[in-house]
Amino acid sequence: MSITEILGYSAAFLTTSSFLPQAFLTLKTKDTRSLSLTMYSLFTMGVLLWLIYGIQKQDFALIIANAITLILSATILGVKIYNLIFKQG
Amino acid sequence: MSITEILGYSAAFLTTSSFLPQAFLTLKTKDTRSLSLTMYSLFTMGVLLWLIYGIQKQDFALIIANAITLILSATILGVKIYNLIFKQG
Repeated sequence: MSITEILGYSAAFLTTSSFLPQAFLTLKTKDTRSLSLTMYSLFTMGVLLWLIYGIQKQDFALIIANAITLILSATILGVKIYNLIFKQG
Repeated sequence: MSITEILGYSAAFLTTSSFLPQAFLTLKTKDTRSLSLTMYSLFTMGVLLWLIYGIQKQDFALIIANAITLILSATILGVKIYNLIFKQG
């Protein structure tokens, strides 16, 4: 594995794992009042585009990072939208 | 500009701009109590590695997205660390 690949996978590991605590907290508490709908909407859409970009470029660090981050981010966004529709905030 | 490049710059625009409201809010209020030190430390380090990875791969969408996100994320992290040292939380 080249230094560039190690860099890519380390970057993927760090940015992806930074979203894990938030996703676990949101699933555990179901509390999304302090989370911004705008931020998570933009971010989730952006991560989806990064994933397609990674697939186009056949860049596996980009693909793995954005596939996992998309699941985490979409989960948080999903709970937020559920709360907005069925609860308050 | 190819479709892949348009995808990359759109992804860059979306994920970067999703951090703008948080950075402005943090600079305006200086309140970082609800922000996770662990999340922003991992994320800032990860974005720095993505930037170096983008430079290595000469991928301009990756470079521009992560250069701007690094400034935003490091600013938020800086205020958080300042508050932890000189104030409470």
